[in-house]
Amino acid sequence: MTAGLARFSINQMTVRQLSLPDLVDACRELGVPGVGLWREPVRAYGVEAAAKLVRDAGLAVTTLCRGGFLTAIDPGERAAALADNRRAVDEAATLGTDTLVLVSGGLPAGSKDLRGARERIADALAELGPYAEEHGVRLAIEPLHPMFASDRCVVSTLTQALDIAERFPAHQVGVTVDTYHIWWDDQAPAQIARAGAEGRIHTFQLADWTTPLPEGVLNGRGQIGDGAVDMREWKGYVDAAGYTGPIEVELFNETLWARNGREVLTETTARFLQHAG
Amino acid sequence: MTAGLARFSINQMTVRQLSLPDLVDACRELGVPGVGLWREPVRAYGVEAAAKLVRDAGLAVTTLCRGGFLTAIDPGERAAALADNRRAVDEAATLGTDTLVLVSGGLPAGSKDLRGARERIADALAELGPYAEEHGVRLAIEPLHPMFASDRCVVSTLTQALDIAERFPAHQVGVTVDTYHIWWDDQAPAQIARAGAEGRIHTFQLADWTTPLPEGVLNGRGQIGDGAVDMREWKGYVDAAGYTGPIEVELFNETLWARNGREVLTETTARFLQHAG
Repeated sequence: MTAGLARFSINQMTVRQLSLPDLVDACRELGVPGVGLWREPVRAYGVEAAAKLVRDAGLAVTTLCRGGFLTAIDPGERAAALADNRRAVDEAATLGTDTLVLVSGGLPAGSKDLRGARERIADALAELGPYAEEHGVRLAIEPLHPMFASDRCVVSTLTQALDIAERFPAHQVGVTVDTYHIWWDDQAPAQIARAGAEGRIHTFQLADWTTPLPEGVLNGRGQIGDGAVDMREWKGYVDAAGYTGPIEVELFNETLWARNGREVLTETTARFLQHAG
Repeated sequence: MTAGLARFSINQMTVRQLSLPDLVDACRELGVPGVGLWREPVRAYGVEAAAKLVRDAGLAVTTLCRGGFLTAIDPGERAAALADNRRAVDEAATLGTDTLVLVSGGLPAGSKDLRGARERIADALAELGPYAEEHGVRLAIEPLHPMFASDRCVVSTLTQALDIAERFPAHQVGVTVDTYHIWWDDQAPAQIARAGAEGRIHTFQLADWTTPLPEGVLNGRGQIGDGAVDMREWKGYVDAAGYTGPIEVELFNETLWARNGREVLTETTARFLQHAG
């Protein structure tokens, strides 16, 4: 393995056109030491089988994406969300990763109450945190870009994520630092330092910011180096905060998904080396 | 005029399908006391002629949109931008409005340096502020939603806007408070209070947040009441900060633009009364 790849992890979504066995093969060939996995393809393959596949290949599972969606008001929906998050913790433990990424969820239909939604996330974490700890899993609240605040994630900044996380022990609840979501925020560097000092940087993810954004804005994350984000600057903040863990590249990008998956993984590996290796 | 409309101003862009004379007619019929104008249609009509048209109709020009785009590094581009902003000040003075809205501009091609771009805005304001003051015009930095940070406006929060504005006298440089851009930000209420205490709320604009966002994300601003923003809550913050000026509704929305302009203005007036009157 190239020394510069020692901390590299490819998030499965970046090359979602690859089957799990093909992804594992490609990682072995290219010397990619880690993968971030997603629940849906892992469950489709079988959680135990997926765990064996990656373990036998010597790949580290750096995160499982994702739990969360904890903003429902309706008691039935809320109970279902909590049960689903417990299953996500179980799956993370089976896969051998210590980190479950949480996307908090948007506003319930008709609600305009961001503060209330954020409080319901904290309430849910009070139940999920101890459960995760019992299973050796840490929850990583991911602030999503403010353009997702209404329909996907009411936690929009690292400041907000840490304000929630700090109510819990760091080995239960921390944060996901993802360049795509925070690159515009001049308060983020100080919040990365805060997160590091508290031991709450549970994963560090890279994606670049490119425009124009596509309709719905979900699948426009740019390949590393193609956009406005200075990856080395952000890696520097995370390094300075004491984070020494894996660095995942997680892209949702229709153009990349339309290409050959191994070719995209090869390109992404090269870009990682160039911009963050 | 309905008492609830006393502070209402319709931003010209909301009903850009209306010619300036038709807009003025419709405002008179509906009892809309103010308009926010845009440079391009005003220049196409003639600045002096537009000024006379609205003055004769007894309409207040609450803002002129927009100056700005002050982030260029190239000296020639920079000089051209400053000259254009001086013209915008002149036009604002001719139209009889005291407020020129500034959209700061995005990153120059190839640049990843948000901080540097923000500093160049401050440098430009040091030249433009005194010029504006001489002409009785205040500059209103508008933070745009962080989804515009790379390509349109490197000033993404009220905090950032005020950090720049406070280097100048309040009668030269203040801010635009627009619900569309700041509704997700839990620090915005405190920043509105800060802006009010410093006398820097130079205009207050309303637009609602609706999803899915369209491709390019520019023209997806929702009609008042259709989205996630609690207008009365934000009006409350601005009221509490001591702002007593006009409240503009500024929507960029392809669906509204495809409809009959008078019908849209009638609807918008009703929505204003319902949610902010």
